[in-house]
Amino acid sequence: MSKGNFEGVLVPVLTPFNSDFSPDPVRFVEQCQWLLAEGANGLAVFGTTSEANSLSLRQREELLDRLVESGIPAAKLMPGTGACALDDAVRMTSKAVNLGCGGVLMHPPFYYKPVVDDGIFAYFSEVIQRVGESTLKIYLYHIPPITMIPFSIYLVGRLIAAYPETVIGLKDSSGDWSNTETLLREYPEFDVFPGSEAFLLQGLRAGARGCITATGNANVAGIRQLVDNWQSDDADAMQARITTVRMAIQAFPLIPALKAMMARIHDAPEWRRVAPPLMPLGEDETRALFAKLAGIDFAMAPHGSVAARSGELNG
Amino acid sequence: MSKGNFEGVLVPVLTPFNSDFSPDPVRFVEQCQWLLAEGANGLAVFGTTSEANSLSLRQREELLDRLVESGIPAAKLMPGTGACALDDAVRMTSKAVNLGCGGVLMHPPFYYKPVVDDGIFAYFSEVIQRVGESTLKIYLYHIPPITMIPFSIYLVGRLIAAYPETVIGLKDSSGDWSNTETLLREYPEFDVFPGSEAFLLQGLRAGARGCITATGNANVAGIRQLVDNWQSDDADAMQARITTVRMAIQAFPLIPALKAMMARIHDAPEWRRVAPPLMPLGEDETRALFAKLAGIDFAMAPHGSVAARSGELNG
Repeated sequence: MSKGNFEGVLVPVLTPFNSDFSPDPVRFVEQCQWLLAEGANGLAVFGTTSEANSLSLRQREELLDRLVESGIPAAKLMPGTGACALDDAVRMTSKAVNLGCGGVLMHPPFYYKPVVDDGIFAYFSEVIQRVGESTLKIYLYHIPPITMIPFSIYLVGRLIAAYPETVIGLKDSSGDWSNTETLLREYPEFDVFPGSEAFLLQGLRAGARGCITATGNANVAGIRQLVDNWQSDDADAMQARITTVRMAIQAFPLIPALKAMMARIHDAPEWRRVAPPLMPLGEDETRALFAKLAGIDFAMAPHGSVAARSGELNG
Repeated sequence: MSKGNFEGVLVPVLTPFNSDFSPDPVRFVEQCQWLLAEGANGLAVFGTTSEANSLSLRQREELLDRLVESGIPAAKLMPGTGACALDDAVRMTSKAVNLGCGGVLMHPPFYYKPVVDDGIFAYFSEVIQRVGESTLKIYLYHIPPITMIPFSIYLVGRLIAAYPETVIGLKDSSGDWSNTETLLREYPEFDVFPGSEAFLLQGLRAGARGCITATGNANVAGIRQLVDNWQSDDADAMQARITTVRMAIQAFPLIPALKAMMARIHDAPEWRRVAPPLMPLGEDETRALFAKLAGIDFAMAPHGSVAARSGELNG
């Protein structure tokens, strides 16, 4: 029995930048609206894919305000609110709760390494107590390849036991299926989302709620199709298809590759920008990526048309 | 020929916390004044030891203002101003320059890993151009065990070549003497500071400008003695002594251990606080640390008296 508001495919929305690397709120709102129209069940804005840690707290606050003001349902938003500094995490999390967001996705503080489980527990306890809202729903963001700070299976259990109505789920971006499987088995009421659609069907069959995936920015319709039909006879074929697309994209630096695809899909070269220390996809790599996608018949419809997607020839 | 304002021993000042983990500005100013009185040549506030990344940007800005208002000479300050977000780094660096700080110590953005040298170069170029002040003096903060993002020898050379009057030094906290030695050999006009007094004499003999060291919080007088007498016959004995003290302290979690020592030295148990995700030194560990220090005759004079230091019996 889930305690959360989310299921299906959630997209960590790419953040479009102006030439000075400030976020472009207009394109950002458009991207969120487009992803929802394409079938996203929720939007995990301010994730790794969103380059959220390359934004100041103020920039993230302003973007979140803009989304809600623009009419994006707050209940569909799961903003990233983790931070190295306790005060920043409390401020961003409180804002998300006050705006009515369906949940928040929190990575641990990631400067010091290693840290002991007690320290991470203390950090989350402080955040939860300071925010002090019964409507707060935290999804832990387990992404040790980037943060280098894992949520151990034991620590997850301890947080659930201490805050059963608040710590209700986890995004597992470890890339380690055995970790996902252990979480699903040990904590059956906990809402686990693999961090890649490559594990979607396997996850759904084992009790996962869906997935939260970077490549949802480019293929949310295809992934949503599997979410809606995972008990059908075609499910394995759908899984194979979305995995093929994922692998084609992640053969390149993932965030720059996805932004190169947005530039093509939305016919807007500005989308190619990434904030330093990331670098945009080079021209040769971009050509190679597009050739690879064409080779697997993955359509990137230009000029904002999004009708043609998975399985159709690129026009 | 150095282009910088610093030499000798610089201390990354510990940050004292209130019970809510907000920084205590009064004790912080006192700590800075005390360290200067004890012999610190400069104060690298907002470093790793300072738990700076556990503070919000606003908290760091306020502390820096308090230091300067309190009469600490800005020229003696080398605040840490690195951040994951470009805007945060620009804002903190501009503030340091405007206050007249002698330099800034900047780690690279540390969320994404790995990143290519081009991305780090682009990040520093943006910071330097946006701050846009000829008085800006950047010391690169190379601490790959924590940031996981190294400044390669090649990248250091590229930054020096592009910004010869701005990128003028580096703190080497790699713990890898061969890296320090290579930097000193390749870039002889570059101001290199090993990140530990264990390499102080070796460094000075090879052309380093001094050291920037966490344990300076506890033993700045002993380290300063070597800085002032490194060409004397007693230098090797002094080095052996400060290394012994360093090793005794770093046998424990370094920041909590140093704060436990401050609690004893300043007779102020509040000093034991660390911000989550760090955890304070436990009682048993504290006893073991103090016993170890007593065993090597390292004096921690209680009640604020700082007369008795290195080499004297703990009373």
